[in-house]
Amino acid sequence: MKRITLSLAENIVDFPLNLIPEEAILESKRSFLNWLGVAIGASHHPSVDMVLELANEIGGPPQVTILGRNIKTDMQFASLINGMSSHIFDFDDTILNTVLHPSAPVWPAVLAVAEHNNLTTKEALEAFVIGCEVEQRIALAICPSHYERGWHVTGTVGAFGAAAAVGKLLKLDHLQMTNALGLAAAQPTGLREMFGTMTKPFHPGKAAANGLLSALLAQKGFTSSLAPLEAKRGFGQVLSENPNFDVIIEPWGNKWQILENSYKPFACGIVTHPGIEAGINLKDIHNINPADIDEIVVEVHPLVLELTGKETPQNQLEAKFSIFHCVAAGIIFGKASEAQFADNIVLREDVVNLRKKIKVIINNSLMEDQVLLHAKFNKGNTINITIEHAIGSKDKPMTNTELEEKFIELTSGILKGKERELISKIWKIGKSLPITEITELSNSQE
Amino acid sequence: MKRITLSLAENIVDFPLNLIPEEAILESKRSFLNWLGVAIGASHHPSVDMVLELANEIGGPPQVTILGRNIKTDMQFASLINGMSSHIFDFDDTILNTVLHPSAPVWPAVLAVAEHNNLTTKEALEAFVIGCEVEQRIALAICPSHYERGWHVTGTVGAFGAAAAVGKLLKLDHLQMTNALGLAAAQPTGLREMFGTMTKPFHPGKAAANGLLSALLAQKGFTSSLAPLEAKRGFGQVLSENPNFDVIIEPWGNKWQILENSYKPFACGIVTHPGIEAGINLKDIHNINPADIDEIVVEVHPLVLELTGKETPQNQLEAKFSIFHCVAAGIIFGKASEAQFADNIVLREDVVNLRKKIKVIINNSLMEDQVLLHAKFNKGNTINITIEHAIGSKDKPMTNTELEEKFIELTSGILKGKERELISKIWKIGKSLPITEITELSNSQE
Repeated sequence: MKRITLSLAENIVDFPLNLIPEEAILESKRSFLNWLGVAIGASHHPSVDMVLELANEIGGPPQVTILGRNIKTDMQFASLINGMSSHIFDFDDTILNTVLHPSAPVWPAVLAVAEHNNLTTKEALEAFVIGCEVEQRIALAICPSHYERGWHVTGTVGAFGAAAAVGKLLKLDHLQMTNALGLAAAQPTGLREMFGTMTKPFHPGKAAANGLLSALLAQKGFTSSLAPLEAKRGFGQVLSENPNFDVIIEPWGNKWQILENSYKPFACGIVTHPGIEAGINLKDIHNINPADIDEIVVEVHPLVLELTGKETPQNQLEAKFSIFHCVAAGIIFGKASEAQFADNIVLREDVVNLRKKIKVIINNSLMEDQVLLHAKFNKGNTINITIEHAIGSKDKPMTNTELEEKFIELTSGILKGKERELISKIWKIGKSLPITEITELSNSQE
Repeated sequence: MKRITLSLAENIVDFPLNLIPEEAILESKRSFLNWLGVAIGASHHPSVDMVLELANEIGGPPQVTILGRNIKTDMQFASLINGMSSHIFDFDDTILNTVLHPSAPVWPAVLAVAEHNNLTTKEALEAFVIGCEVEQRIALAICPSHYERGWHVTGTVGAFGAAAAVGKLLKLDHLQMTNALGLAAAQPTGLREMFGTMTKPFHPGKAAANGLLSALLAQKGFTSSLAPLEAKRGFGQVLSENPNFDVIIEPWGNKWQILENSYKPFACGIVTHPGIEAGINLKDIHNINPADIDEIVVEVHPLVLELTGKETPQNQLEAKFSIFHCVAAGIIFGKASEAQFADNIVLREDVVNLRKKIKVIINNSLMEDQVLLHAKFNKGNTINITIEHAIGSKDKPMTNTELEEKFIELTSGILKGKERELISKIWKIGKSLPITEITELSNSQE
């Protein structure tokens, strides 16, 4: 039998970091910019307050910055909180073929160790590339059956990514790295049943904390299985059907998983994005008046209604799972950021009225990033819009400028002027800056 | 659809504690005595040192006693460590029909909250009864398929027990309790692949810490699914086949799960115990000389070879998973405590020689607590021994005196004289003593 986990551990430990290509480094910077923005943006959410309060009661020394706040806490609680924040808005990055959100469980753990150990941004960036590689390879090995069974893959495999990245920063040896992966395997976090509650963003946060804990214990000599991924009663067999372990041990360096990453232009589930873009086109290109609309018919990929079929959302969270609200927001506001999902917007009369006029039908021939929209107006005219590839999809990625704009919109109310300086630093994290140059700009003056 | 989790939460919150019968209280005291002994006994294991070192680096304030040590740490790390200690020797309690070890994931969390919040031993004891009830009902709902799939049930359902017990101590309301159970559902810990490594005892420790965290966050208003156990993508469906949720919501008070608990007389997996007892009988009753043995044939339940089939163990841990070593220890030493699994004993020439003479064969007609042993001697004579119910099984439970002797053997080297005073206190924990009367006697003077 092939030794899957040991082979993976060898790659993590031995792969020469200088062979990571420039394009992977660039994509990791883009991931960091996007991740930091969504984490800071959601950092004052009530759920963050709750965990911070608990950290204050039972947590450890002030080792790591809580993004967007004016406080530090210990590495473990900081990983949990920063990981949670970055997933609260459902606005973080996605690798579409596994629906993995790669940054949320890995970056918090990397940041924690880098800040506490005075490492450089370059070391952190490279560790993230490794962590992303590991979590996505494991996700590929166990998906789609793993996700279909009900696991929230970002939480479950995220712990491996965090353990690998932290293990890399701590310079673990082969055996320690294998043990770290074993400890991570024993702690899968995240069920899809939790979607729509505070526990969903808790998943990647806990994955970050668990992965960190795994690597820190492995460094001290803590032992685990040497075949935690591939054994008969290991992670792969227990949590999925017929896992394909080969993808985990394919040679490193030919193709980097981080290059599959994509970023959301809109603050809701990625399957709604083509519909939102079609709505925005109706407003921005065709300049229509929403009051003139008789009916909107949107043809979508089947997953859209399965995941976001809520017809009459009553609050922010429900609106994010409503393709009807998403399209309406695109038409009325020309955007779908956090503000367009606020409770008062969700219940506003013109929004409610427009939602009622929207029909969504399944078209099995469409891809997930495609949509057809047909608008009929009360003067008898019609407009048809086709979205071939939604913005933010892999074929039409957000530009660096669009990512910067998203960052500013999410953070300016909290960073109050520091956001542009922080952006310019972020583009330089491939260099050996002290990580504190990032963390010191990422807190708020509350 | 029946509301399983909400109904469970209602029972946890509403069941009148004064209706817990005296026999359940007594069994819980016996559980506590046994649990505290094994936790103190293993409290100087290298894996405990590792986690303590980490707690010192990233943990919080000194809130809770580390059993058997001269230190306190925060509630979360203390739950992890005390839970680990109590499972390291594989010498803790078992509810046989699910193979759940009920104390290891629940008592540490109860102790943490009770000590930190200055509660009484009576409150702690009652909370444990509730926690045990919850974890075992959930285990019954998902076993055997859950365990067969490869989950370590003590870790996975243990978090529910800890969350319920802590939630009871914190006086959570129905909704908070449901959310606590939801958070616990999202954090299942423990794969059977980890057996034989430090990660196995890590499972109940982490379950205790996760359950504690779940209840503490729920108290602050953190939200989760309201149907985490029964939903399509909830804990039951995702982690088992055809779960039987009815057992979770059967009325409370007719039958208490703690009454199913049993305690190990020997420091290894429970399936080996009938074999050990047969070996002890050979020594104690028949007074044979091991050197005269030609061959030993042991007929066992099929699970024995599946779980403990290691023929040539090389160290303590492997010996615990070797029915061959277990029987040999019974024959040579007349006991199988920690000392009979020490590395030097495992490798001792007479032990190795006797192990080689032992053959183990499966007999499908035997129950798990039964064994047939046939000894042939070099003078031509034979002895046959039948164990109908092994000591420590539910039909032949350890007496209070035997539990006290086990406690003393495990703890006297650490407590150095305090052990008898502690035992007498433990029999009084049904009264409203400050919990500190227990914890202050449970540390060491290092």
